[in-house]
Amino acid sequence: MPGQFRVGILGATGTVGQRFIQILERHPHFRVTALAASDRSEGKPYAQACTWRLPGEIPEGVKPLRVQAPLPPLACDLIFSSLPAEMAKETEEAFARTGYPVISNSSAWRMENDVPLLIPEVNPSHLRLLEAQRCRGFAKGGLLVTNPNCSTVMLALALAPLHARFGVTAAVATTMQALSGAGYPGVASLDATDNVLPFIENEEEKIERETRKILGSMNGTQLQHAAFPVSAQCHRVNVSDGHMAAVRVKLEKPARLEEVREAMAGFRGFPQESRLPSAPERPLIVRDEPDRPQPRLDRDAGNGMSVTIGRILPDRVLDFRFVALSHNTIRGAAGAAILNAELLAAQGYFDLLGRGAA
Amino acid sequence: MPGQFRVGILGATGTVGQRFIQILERHPHFRVTALAASDRSEGKPYAQACTWRLPGEIPEGVKPLRVQAPLPPLACDLIFSSLPAEMAKETEEAFARTGYPVISNSSAWRMENDVPLLIPEVNPSHLRLLEAQRCRGFAKGGLLVTNPNCSTVMLALALAPLHARFGVTAAVATTMQALSGAGYPGVASLDATDNVLPFIENEEEKIERETRKILGSMNGTQLQHAAFPVSAQCHRVNVSDGHMAAVRVKLEKPARLEEVREAMAGFRGFPQESRLPSAPERPLIVRDEPDRPQPRLDRDAGNGMSVTIGRILPDRVLDFRFVALSHNTIRGAAGAAILNAELLAAQGYFDLLGRGAA
Amino acid sequence: MPGQFRVGILGATGTVGQRFIQILERHPHFRVTALAASDRSEGKPYAQACTWRLPGEIPEGVKPLRVQAPLPPLACDLIFSSLPAEMAKETEEAFARTGYPVISNSSAWRMENDVPLLIPEVNPSHLRLLEAQRCRGFAKGGLLVTNPNCSTVMLALALAPLHARFGVTAAVATTMQALSGAGYPGVASLDATDNVLPFIENEEEKIERETRKILGSMNGTQLQHAAFPVSAQCHRVNVSDGHMAAVRVKLEKPARLEEVREAMAGFRGFPQESRLPSAPERPLIVRDEPDRPQPRLDRDAGNGMSVTIGRILPDRVLDFRFVALSHNTIRGAAGAAILNAELLAAQGYFDLLGRGAA
Amino acid sequence: MPGQFRVGILGATGTVGQRFIQILERHPHFRVTALAASDRSEGKPYAQACTWRLPGEIPEGVKPLRVQAPLPPLACDLIFSSLPAEMAKETEEAFARTGYPVISNSSAWRMENDVPLLIPEVNPSHLRLLEAQRCRGFAKGGLLVTNPNCSTVMLALALAPLHARFGVTAAVATTMQALSGAGYPGVASLDATDNVLPFIENEEEKIERETRKILGSMNGTQLQHAAFPVSAQCHRVNVSDGHMAAVRVKLEKPARLEEVREAMAGFRGFPQESRLPSAPERPLIVRDEPDRPQPRLDRDAGNGMSVTIGRILPDRVLDFRFVALSHNTIRGAAGAAILNAELLAAQGYFDLLGRGAA
Repeated sequence: MPGQFRVGILGATGTVGQRFIQILERHPHFRVTALAASDRSEGKPYAQACTWRLPGEIPEGVKPLRVQAPLPPLACDLIFSSLPAEMAKETEEAFARTGYPVISNSSAWRMENDVPLLIPEVNPSHLRLLEAQRCRGFAKGGLLVTNPNCSTVMLALALAPLHARFGVTAAVATTMQALSGAGYPGVASLDATDNVLPFIENEEEKIERETRKILGSMNGTQLQHAAFPVSAQCHRVNVSDGHMAAVRVKLEKPARLEEVREAMAGFRGFPQESRLPSAPERPLIVRDEPDRPQPRLDRDAGNGMSVTIGRILPDRVLDFRFVALSHNTIRGAAGAAILNAELLAAQGYFDLLGRGAA
Repeated sequence: MPGQFRVGILGATGTVGQRFIQILERHPHFRVTALAASDRSEGKPYAQACTWRLPGEIPEGVKPLRVQAPLPPLACDLIFSSLPAEMAKETEEAFARTGYPVISNSSAWRMENDVPLLIPEVNPSHLRLLEAQRCRGFAKGGLLVTNPNCSTVMLALALAPLHARFGVTAAVATTMQALSGAGYPGVASLDATDNVLPFIENEEEKIERETRKILGSMNGTQLQHAAFPVSAQCHRVNVSDGHMAAVRVKLEKPARLEEVREAMAGFRGFPQESRLPSAPERPLIVRDEPDRPQPRLDRDAGNGMSVTIGRILPDRVLDFRFVALSHNTIRGAAGAAILNAELLAAQGYFDLLGRGAA
Repeated sequence: MPGQFRVGILGATGTVGQRFIQILERHPHFRVTALAASDRSEGKPYAQACTWRLPGEIPEGVKPLRVQAPLPPLACDLIFSSLPAEMAKETEEAFARTGYPVISNSSAWRMENDVPLLIPEVNPSHLRLLEAQRCRGFAKGGLLVTNPNCSTVMLALALAPLHARFGVTAAVATTMQALSGAGYPGVASLDATDNVLPFIENEEEKIERETRKILGSMNGTQLQHAAFPVSAQCHRVNVSDGHMAAVRVKLEKPARLEEVREAMAGFRGFPQESRLPSAPERPLIVRDEPDRPQPRLDRDAGNGMSVTIGRILPDRVLDFRFVALSHNTIRGAAGAAILNAELLAAQGYFDLLGRGAA
Repeated sequence: MPGQFRVGILGATGTVGQRFIQILERHPHFRVTALAASDRSEGKPYAQACTWRLPGEIPEGVKPLRVQAPLPPLACDLIFSSLPAEMAKETEEAFARTGYPVISNSSAWRMENDVPLLIPEVNPSHLRLLEAQRCRGFAKGGLLVTNPNCSTVMLALALAPLHARFGVTAAVATTMQALSGAGYPGVASLDATDNVLPFIENEEEKIERETRKILGSMNGTQLQHAAFPVSAQCHRVNVSDGHMAAVRVKLEKPARLEEVREAMAGFRGFPQESRLPSAPERPLIVRDEPDRPQPRLDRDAGNGMSVTIGRILPDRVLDFRFVALSHNTIRGAAGAAILNAELLAAQGYFDLLGRGAA
């Protein structure tokens, strides 16, 4: 992976924005040079504008950066966005139109026909959709890619090797999602303590449709979504970080339990082969203890980029079942976007960059 | 419901034993007169033997009762048992053999062919299995009935009206279970805080088989288990009381969403018709808010005897889905057994009782 | 206590407002007839305007009441207020000026010289301050009384018998306060889970000054605040309801441990003597188990109106120490105001009331 | 700091034992070569014997080590012990007698006259007590040093610079302690969830006496404990890691707030000057935000070896107050012992070592 890129972050003061900054602190290729947010923090140095809510200190390098309005131009080569969906649509397009590659964590563009919804281990071929983005008339270098919803990413990663090898014909996922997924202030503590909330707005719909797009196959430059139905029921539980999903899956071809286990444990993709800087050694870590995965013990596996799988068993209604867990603000958000950017860099999509700012 | 019965409780110092005592404090027909436990509390007055872990005080009436060994005879007319499974098998039988009706919350006898696994709203006809118990040679009055596992009870109650009206052909349940379900000390706090445990020993198996027995139909004095497959994935979450289940169901006959809702909301059974003292007005309370049920808000509905249902929706893989919640130590344990005893009393099974003890 | 009074609640949709409604559901003398709130809920029936966040249902009687603006006149005889401090000052005065007795839970008027800061067991004599309110020119019947901050009330109740008998010369309190004390949405769950917050705005100051006012003595119609210093350090812990305080106290007269215990356990006041409807049998419940009080087990003691005291021991730096616990939205808020109103009624302050409702 | 030492861990399968192993994984001078435990894990490879309860995996190097009985000899140069107090007394002495330096985290030996109770930043001079250990007739190289109780360490570290500069005349500490301090399984989750426990056995006594020993001064080879009284009230709160203490302190010499702050912020000791490998850059990190320290955000400061101080303010009863926080199983246990061993190594106490391993 070549070169050094200056990075701008939209939504820099939010929960995911802070994760971007934390993860990028020691990144070999990306250096944060611009921060933008839509709140009243504009104009202040980041150290003042942001109430840092992650353990540890704000990285020194970003403390003096002034928070700007999320409008082009920004002094950077590429854009990471974690803007709220309602303002992401327009803003992200504005940056792409002016020639910035926009790697977005927001949901606004995920389901557009010409926008790749990427998991680098799963569907790097979907980058071909970018050819269709030419019709949008973005300035040279401008493009839009997205990563999935924080729960979808673990479901799609877990299903990918099963779909490839046995063909998935139905998937049923029941999630138990962490509080940080709702941002800050997010869930009221009175709703979280000694409680479970059976409702996360739009979440079930997102999982049901995004999974099928991600596992779809390219037909020339057209993407055909996967045909199998997905059922999602989503719950918020009293966990700080780490989304969990209980999954059942129906397969087209007969499979033995051990084959299912092996398909998952042996799964590798382009990021592993190309040793992308944020790629975990194993996208799926299969554990055989009966009581794993657990959020507290497994969310940081592979620096938060591995999905941990456990309890792979035959199912009485579908064919197999298992439990998946992943770090929702790393593999489920900021880390996912960064890995997408590394994929784009590795495949030459940033070769044009060098717009001198500042 | 006639008469007054003296009650003995096996496992009186445990979590469920304490619930028995708390619920029975003001019961119109049952009065606690004997307490037994297998631990080192034998011989002490209950007030000393027991570390009371429910809000409020130990009821005055039981404070001076001496804790006895769980062996017949005890100074009571009938037995509630919440012994651990491993000692329940023999001990409960010993009481039945000597002529005590044993209403058990333990799992030891649930799957025996001649033992009713009862939910009074669902399968009172299964009491006919007691005729087959005659072969066991229990002394006059002796009998054994059981109530389901704490998670099964809400699943079976929720499925019952759907099975009756539309025919269930498959059920998929994913549970999020409360800490009190594991007794005391039960789950270590380090495993519960900021965490979810994806494993509860034997729980998935219990739900999968008990549900089918409960929803089975009597063929003469033979019970035919329901034929549909049940899939259960069970999780322990950081909630004190109140088990939740995300359920999907496949139906034999076509059903509209509103019909499914009505079948559940309108469900009533023998306990409601006969106004059994512990019967909730509605066994299933259907709520239409998008974010209900919740353990903290709904576990005490109907004094802990109602199951709250919410989020009834069409499902993309099975036919419908919903979320169920019930109080695991009331409807899921002590309250279930007490309602069973009320059913037995109402149907005349205790008419022979009057064994003078003391 | 004579008569029936129609009650209006300001701040009716908030956390404390909901507690008022819940507690008053079966009150023998007070009936809720008017609801007001300052938010966008105005004009709607309460059942629609309010997201009910307490276990159980909204009482039937208030469901159809339309939420009004918090301005006089309201169709009621007296006012309970739980308005936020910033709007309470003016609004509460407006009601008092028009002749309503205002029993306020807000902090706005607590420290005014002519406003009683009442705990009926502790300082009913402070009602004489109402004579000085005449200068304010309130219409006949109009008056303003307040109850203390949710943490102060348990500290002052616990200190009262010690101050009366031994003279307190210094008090040191370290609180561990429940989430519901911050209202809704209040504390963000990410700040509450696996965490303690060492800061609650203005709380330490309130405890330090309110305690001394409450324990002050009347000198004619003048109130002399208690002279001893109070030190408070306040923390928010991950508990839904129930404030706890670790207290040390220095005494003027020598006291033996047993005398301190007896002073607290034997404490009774006007509400107990006059059997006010909301008065607990014992304002202070002293427990001798080494591990009590605990929020989960003791917050509902005396229907949430008793303060539970435990771990009374000699202290190496001050003289004695103990731990106090009380239900922060009952004895610490709504219940405190209702008991104040019962005191006023019993002492004839409402005798003039009879303003015809709408 | 010279050389390489082979380390044996007593109590290797427990909560603190696991921390020892985790911290030592990359230690420049200590390499784990022997593991011992008193439970039924004897004889098994550590990977099988131990249920690893920390995030991340068991370090590869210790996986195959067989767990041995905690009896000399072990194939190591020095011993870290986290045995339970009741068995630590004899076992640790047995190792010291046979010539092993024993660096103990257990409470058994802490208050013995000739045993240093060490915090390397605070009282390295107490190592002179080891001269008195000669009377015990330990074999050459054998010695016993201890680190304080997990709450004491943060109190003593925080008081040390104040005592040195202004003279402490009284200290009052109220702790809110994490669940991991009780080991595993430790606190039952039903006692932890939605609750605070006001009792930790022997904890208040330990803090009150250990603090005075640590802050005592050497008079030749005699240790004179500090004269000021210490008052401790201890609570268990629902936090996984990170003990917090609300502290008040009375000082001999007049001090301004800013001087108190500076004394703490500027505090450094031998470990910092000598750059011991586990020494944090700053033993005390003073934060000025009103809502810090917080367990979730600050427990890992300085790799868990810094104590974070906040809310330094004048106090109305004593002179000043502040809140302290530290990681209870790192600075409060395993990390404390390791820093003690680094101190001993740096001061030549291990120069004799070189006993050939088995």
